Amino acid sequence: MNVHTRAEVLLEALPYIKRFAGQVVVVKYGGNALAGSSDDQALGLFAQDLVLMRAVGMHPVVVHGGGPQISDLMKRLGKETEFRNGLRVTDAETVDIARMVLIGQVNPQLVAAINTHGPIAVGVSGEDAGLIKATPRDPELGFVGDVSAINPTILRGLIDDDFIPVVATIGTHDAGQAYNINADTVAGAIAEALGAEKLVYLTDIEGLRRQVDDPASLIHQTTPDELDQLVVDGVIAGGMIPKVESCVRAVRHGVRRAHILDGRIPHVLLLELFTDEGVGTMVRSPRELIQEGP
Amino acid sequence: MNVHTRAEVLLEALPYIKRFAGQVVVVKYGGNALAGSSDDQALGLFAQDLVLMRAVGMHPVVVHGGGPQISDLMKRLGKETEFRNGLRVTDAETVDIARMVLIGQVNPQLVAAINTHGPIAVGVSGEDAGLIKATPRDPELGFVGDVSAINPTILRGLIDDDFIPVVATIGTHDAGQAYNINADTVAGAIAEALGAEKLVYLTDIEGLRRQVDDPASLIHQTTPDELDQLVVDGVIAGGMIPKVESCVRAVRHGVRRAHILDGRIPHVLLLELFTDEGVGTMVRSPRELIQEGP
Amino acid sequence: MNVHTRAEVLLEALPYIKRFAGQVVVVKYGGNALAGSSDDQALGLFAQDLVLMRAVGMHPVVVHGGGPQISDLMKRLGKETEFRNGLRVTDAETVDIARMVLIGQVNPQLVAAINTHGPIAVGVSGEDAGLIKATPRDPELGFVGDVSAINPTILRGLIDDDFIPVVATIGTHDAGQAYNINADTVAGAIAEALGAEKLVYLTDIEGLRRQVDDPASLIHQTTPDELDQLVVDGVIAGGMIPKVESCVRAVRHGVRRAHILDGRIPHVLLLELFTDEGVGTMVRSPRELIQEGP
Amino acid sequence: MNVHTRAEVLLEALPYIKRFAGQVVVVKYGGNALAGSSDDQALGLFAQDLVLMRAVGMHPVVVHGGGPQISDLMKRLGKETEFRNGLRVTDAETVDIARMVLIGQVNPQLVAAINTHGPIAVGVSGEDAGLIKATPRDPELGFVGDVSAINPTILRGLIDDDFIPVVATIGTHDAGQAYNINADTVAGAIAEALGAEKLVYLTDIEGLRRQVDDPASLIHQTTPDELDQLVVDGVIAGGMIPKVESCVRAVRHGVRRAHILDGRIPHVLLLELFTDEGVGTMVRSPRELIQEGP
Amino acid sequence: MNVHTRAEVLLEALPYIKRFAGQVVVVKYGGNALAGSSDDQALGLFAQDLVLMRAVGMHPVVVHGGGPQISDLMKRLGKETEFRNGLRVTDAETVDIARMVLIGQVNPQLVAAINTHGPIAVGVSGEDAGLIKATPRDPELGFVGDVSAINPTILRGLIDDDFIPVVATIGTHDAGQAYNINADTVAGAIAEALGAEKLVYLTDIEGLRRQVDDPASLIHQTTPDELDQLVVDGVIAGGMIPKVESCVRAVRHGVRRAHILDGRIPHVLLLELFTDEGVGTMVRSPRELIQEGP
Amino acid sequence: MNVHTRAEVLLEALPYIKRFAGQVVVVKYGGNALAGSSDDQALGLFAQDLVLMRAVGMHPVVVHGGGPQISDLMKRLGKETEFRNGLRVTDAETVDIARMVLIGQVNPQLVAAINTHGPIAVGVSGEDAGLIKATPRDPELGFVGDVSAINPTILRGLIDDDFIPVVATIGTHDAGQAYNINADTVAGAIAEALGAEKLVYLTDIEGLRRQVDDPASLIHQTTPDELDQLVVDGVIAGGMIPKVESCVRAVRHGVRRAHILDGRIPHVLLLELFTDEGVGTMVRSPRELIQEGP
Repeated sequence: MNVHTRAEVLLEALPYIKRFAGQVVVVKYGGNALAGSSDDQALGLFAQDLVLMRAVGMHPVVVHGGGPQISDLMKRLGKETEFRNGLRVTDAETVDIARMVLIGQVNPQLVAAINTHGPIAVGVSGEDAGLIKATPRDPELGFVGDVSAINPTILRGLIDDDFIPVVATIGTHDAGQAYNINADTVAGAIAEALGAEKLVYLTDIEGLRRQVDDPASLIHQTTPDELDQLVVDGVIAGGMIPKVESCVRAVRHGVRRAHILDGRIPHVLLLELFTDEGVGTMVRSPRELIQEGP
Repeated sequence: MNVHTRAEVLLEALPYIKRFAGQVVVVKYGGNALAGSSDDQALGLFAQDLVLMRAVGMHPVVVHGGGPQISDLMKRLGKETEFRNGLRVTDAETVDIARMVLIGQVNPQLVAAINTHGPIAVGVSGEDAGLIKATPRDPELGFVGDVSAINPTILRGLIDDDFIPVVATIGTHDAGQAYNINADTVAGAIAEALGAEKLVYLTDIEGLRRQVDDPASLIHQTTPDELDQLVVDGVIAGGMIPKVESCVRAVRHGVRRAHILDGRIPHVLLLELFTDEGVGTMVRSPRELIQEGP
Repeated sequence: MNVHTRAEVLLEALPYIKRFAGQVVVVKYGGNALAGSSDDQALGLFAQDLVLMRAVGMHPVVVHGGGPQISDLMKRLGKETEFRNGLRVTDAETVDIARMVLIGQVNPQLVAAINTHGPIAVGVSGEDAGLIKATPRDPELGFVGDVSAINPTILRGLIDDDFIPVVATIGTHDAGQAYNINADTVAGAIAEALGAEKLVYLTDIEGLRRQVDDPASLIHQTTPDELDQLVVDGVIAGGMIPKVESCVRAVRHGVRRAHILDGRIPHVLLLELFTDEGVGTMVRSPRELIQEGP
Repeated sequence: MNVHTRAEVLLEALPYIKRFAGQVVVVKYGGNALAGSSDDQALGLFAQDLVLMRAVGMHPVVVHGGGPQISDLMKRLGKETEFRNGLRVTDAETVDIARMVLIGQVNPQLVAAINTHGPIAVGVSGEDAGLIKATPRDPELGFVGDVSAINPTILRGLIDDDFIPVVATIGTHDAGQAYNINADTVAGAIAEALGAEKLVYLTDIEGLRRQVDDPASLIHQTTPDELDQLVVDGVIAGGMIPKVESCVRAVRHGVRRAHILDGRIPHVLLLELFTDEGVGTMVRSPRELIQEGP
Repeated sequence: MNVHTRAEVLLEALPYIKRFAGQVVVVKYGGNALAGSSDDQALGLFAQDLVLMRAVGMHPVVVHGGGPQISDLMKRLGKETEFRNGLRVTDAETVDIARMVLIGQVNPQLVAAINTHGPIAVGVSGEDAGLIKATPRDPELGFVGDVSAINPTILRGLIDDDFIPVVATIGTHDAGQAYNINADTVAGAIAEALGAEKLVYLTDIEGLRRQVDDPASLIHQTTPDELDQLVVDGVIAGGMIPKVESCVRAVRHGVRRAHILDGRIPHVLLLELFTDEGVGTMVRSPRELIQEGP
Repeated sequence: MNVHTRAEVLLEALPYIKRFAGQVVVVKYGGNALAGSSDDQALGLFAQDLVLMRAVGMHPVVVHGGGPQISDLMKRLGKETEFRNGLRVTDAETVDIARMVLIGQVNPQLVAAINTHGPIAVGVSGEDAGLIKATPRDPELGFVGDVSAINPTILRGLIDDDFIPVVATIGTHDAGQAYNINADTVAGAIAEALGAEKLVYLTDIEGLRRQVDDPASLIHQTTPDELDQLVVDGVIAGGMIPKVESCVRAVRHGVRRAHILDGRIPHVLLLELFTDEGVGTMVRSPRELIQEGP
């Protein structure tokens, strides 16, 4: 590559570096986002993006789930899963398995991948320092919880010390009992509690569509109101609902922008952060559309 | 109990509260220490002790292992253990299991037990922020490591913010590979790196003995030199060796006192910290014996 | 005493230690509170209580009077006291004697007793750094003053540096003239100015009563409104009035609880602070009675 | 006075204001220094000088004695003084009287005089926060002590908060017993402990002389060595000895200059601080004489 | 001069030193103020005044113009000045000359004069750190600007570090183009932005008059309302208008007092700051006249 | 350009961004460096480079000369230049012109160019806050000075506040007289005083050569010792000597690397900072060559 091209790229990134300096960006990282490349390689690219974000002054916070890995260990342990109304019943043994996988397997994998660049990532569980308080969703489902409160003290401390927190989404009920919580929801709640600049979902889809079957209907920019309608209309369904609802809620509670990106594109985070080109779907408030332009 | 007795006890604790204010105390907590009472109850008592230590201004740091729990999960997964010269060979799958158990099962159990008293404990793995750097012990043993360096930055940050760090002893080799490391050794290395006031091992024995079979030969106070000799003489053997060697090394590198206590005694930590009565075995330097008296 | 009893007592104190950490507790110490034991011994016990309070993170502030000691010196100097409507007329010589006794005799006695435990107590007079501004009560009474303003700067500085301030209640009028001020009133005003958690009067009675002659009518908990009524009804009278009025005013201005304790009970401060058992009379707002329970 | 004269005076003071900004000046104030004017007036002038020193950025620290006032109270109380080898025997009652006078009478007088200018002076006794540790001088003399250690923590705190500390020279022996200590000696020890720029004695003589009876032999500048010789030769004697020895010791331990001034001259402190004209006797090291000139 | 006179003068200055400690005083220094003495000498006296102000804790900020010096360089460069409606047309070359003279000639002269007393003055241009944002006054006049915004960040930083900022009044329009701005206006805008205690204009007149030709009508104290009227009535005219309007605006926006002084009087700043005698014209709000007296 | 190329470039810059975070880089900017492009455009590119350096956490400090611009103004003012032994004689008028041009023309041009990106650049003259103390080089040359001392206080303050200081190289002799000082020498002295990571000269040559006429002998890396020899051998001569001597001195006094770059290459600073490719000549100590590799 021509040496002058490099200067050009660096200078193109300059306004974004300045705009995002000191800002918190919460990134939800899901296992499914990595399709199309070997896991390890995708993880390495993702780690590079985080390290660069931090190097230019941003504060990335990673939130991850681990559904496939939980299913895998349950299978190896010969543990059957019971479903009720399409939702997995989480008994005491299941939540222990989920905890073991999320905190003891997926989380350290992410931490280790980032830390090949230096001692900068720290794994955090929702049980640490009361980060995630859970409330039971439905007695029949067992230890499946909703977020009742976020105590961001531990995250702020790590951010102030320039660490990259990596959050496993196990929450605690009052009596100290662990609950498994939807990672998409946690990511939104943490973005809100930290007053994040951005909330980013890395998924395995190109972005949201206005018509399910029409790739040309990809939504580049949208608002909370439009998304509410798309959910009501059934256009957005299934696993996208917690993501979309979290985006809507976060943008309405002070997060400046929420994004649904295609995690299969290498370095999609950098592309979103350092270019004007539309990647995936961006959610922002209608008020901002008027005031600031793109 | 008479109300005046209470005042008396509080006042007896006063000189110890003053002496230990602001000091770091590293406590190695092993599963075997809990024999003689149900696990949950023992864990609850231990958590109370930590919370009281913190309430009066000390900085406890917990280091834990989890050998029995690792064996248990291996068994459930049908994984055979190969031994070479009496030592377990730790292949890639084994270290993944160890990581899952230590970080994802034992660590959050401890954190949750403490956090029933408030949002004060934070789980930390040796992979977080480069806390424990490992070096392979023997290629034939696989991913079993020794401590090559401690980076206490993350612990100091948590201590400064008045959290109780709970450390799972997985270390990282240069390329980011996880290694399983002896928790006794890690406890000593962390005490040394933090300039701790005390290093405490909670075990399932009453203390060290000068003659193996003679309970009357229990050692109340000793020095590094005497311990060296007892190891040479074969009086100290087996699983006690890493504990004793860590005590010796820590005391020689600035930790003021090291203790081997009987974790089966309820609140043994409080008894050691707030009374003059001898509980278990205390190691300190001969120089201090001369200068300060008991 | 059984070693395990000790652990139990320490753990019982734990919630109180946590609740009061970093809180200011203003203690009015009066000479009469010490009846029933030799002065020196009682003073030593009181000093221990203060040192323990400080050791577990509280900020005690001592306010003292010294009426008997003033009378004593006046007698030795052959100075007659004139009374008008039952109140002592304080001429220039009398206020100089009061100042000498309070600042130069009682105050250093308290400071010295505490400082046998370390260099932690500092004597402060109301003249220091404008701490107590006085306004004359009645021209006929001479240099007897009421508190017109508290400037807590010097106290805050000492508290921040972890000292125990011991306050002698001489105030200053605008022109720099010293005035003698009721120590009970000063204690309340200082508690209010510092936003104290507690205001405690150590007296020589068991507590307030609902009927003067009926020991069984001892008041364990009460409210400002009830106390107002008891004063109107004449149940509370004499030297208790400034104490009770100060309690009422302090609780109405943000001090969480005020206490009238029997200073003749050894370590009564510790008993009040670290047990739930009722000692003496506690005043708190009706609003708190509803919200928090005991 | 001509308005331009004022500008001239202010500008002449400028280099001194700059030189002394942020510096500590310890001033020993003795009752005898005030002869020739009514006490109150002299005290008012002295207070003005201190307030001006502080206003232009210096940190004055006042140390005072009170011999005449102690004798006066002893007489009023009918207390006889016993002398042994010309030194007053200080029994328990005598030291209590000294404490009462120094801390409770002289000290608040000084504090009050300064505080007519604002809430800036704070009385401190040597018993506060372990400021003056005393060691008994001679068992036969009773509670007369020498300085064994200065703990300047409390003074540094007050200086940092821009207060003017006023020190009464009662010290404490290990067991908490009060001792009366020579105020000249304390002033020197405090100047040394604070690394003062200047140590100033306000006396009732014009300055030191080389020949006792010859006013023309007034010493304007001298060195520790010359003063040592004058003491050996008996030229300096009696009450001047502790002053001179303290000057010598202080200058040899880092205090830049020591002064013996005539406290009977109004505003003599200002004259010394803000003019080059010689007032009284200045002591400085020979090394400085060579390096810096006058 | 008698040594005691000196003490008297210093003490007379004391209340002013106390009142102005830590306050910002913005001084507009104009070349014409120096008539009646050689420039260098007047500059030296002015520098002394600033250094004294700083030595006693005030924060002087100097704002200067340089009209005569600009005219002089234009003449030397053979550059003709075009006037339109009596105002100088400032083309690109003219603004470059103004910039060169103000920033490169007058400003360093002032800085150097002050810095003969120590490294305390720092030259600042309105282009530095966005200090003065300009808006074009009239397209026909070219690069003559009005103040559209003051960004006082750089001044606050220098003041906090105890430097004396010396401001050259070149402003910047959005695209980075330099504009020449009236220094009187800038002085007022900076005083307002810094919340200054005082705004002082050093001029070559004795003060404002109520009747132009009557020296006896000199105004000692006035209010914004009266000044508005005097401008409407045409009593105040010409070059005094920007000064008077800036005084009026500043006093209405929080600056406590504005002064128009005769810069030809040596040390006029000190006389104004440290005596009660009226020098020149003082502007303050009618509200203050009622509340505080003179 | 392909979007993925951008990610690649950003990631290539990552190790350099990390290495230089928080480091000071002193850049000497000379008018002659800009040949081959219009001045304004080159200045704009240079400003972009500085802004990017700051955005990624570096602390650039700019030092500039202005020889051609000084000559130009002298010519316009009809001022003849006298030479003695090939060196320009600088009389009082000449140094005034130099000051006017450097501080009032070149410096604000640089400041304004940077500040089109935000309020981040601040012009500083060597006269500000005693930054550059000068000593006369030779009485016959008049006001030409050498650096006798650097007082970096003002630069550290600006750097701490995240400003980009732009330094005009006028120094001050003791009496406040301005001296013109070689900007190459000043750049080296400032780099040394600030403990800079890098000292960079932007020139109008490709780099140093080992043989003057052989472009193939361009020196990519060298050491102070080799440069000393090249000066002795006469290979380095003329205007390069102060640059080379400053590089040598700076590297010997703690600056890690010095560079002589071709300022005619657009964005040459970025290329040097963010790629491994050799641009121009780099000077570093032989010790580092051994220890760190390229």
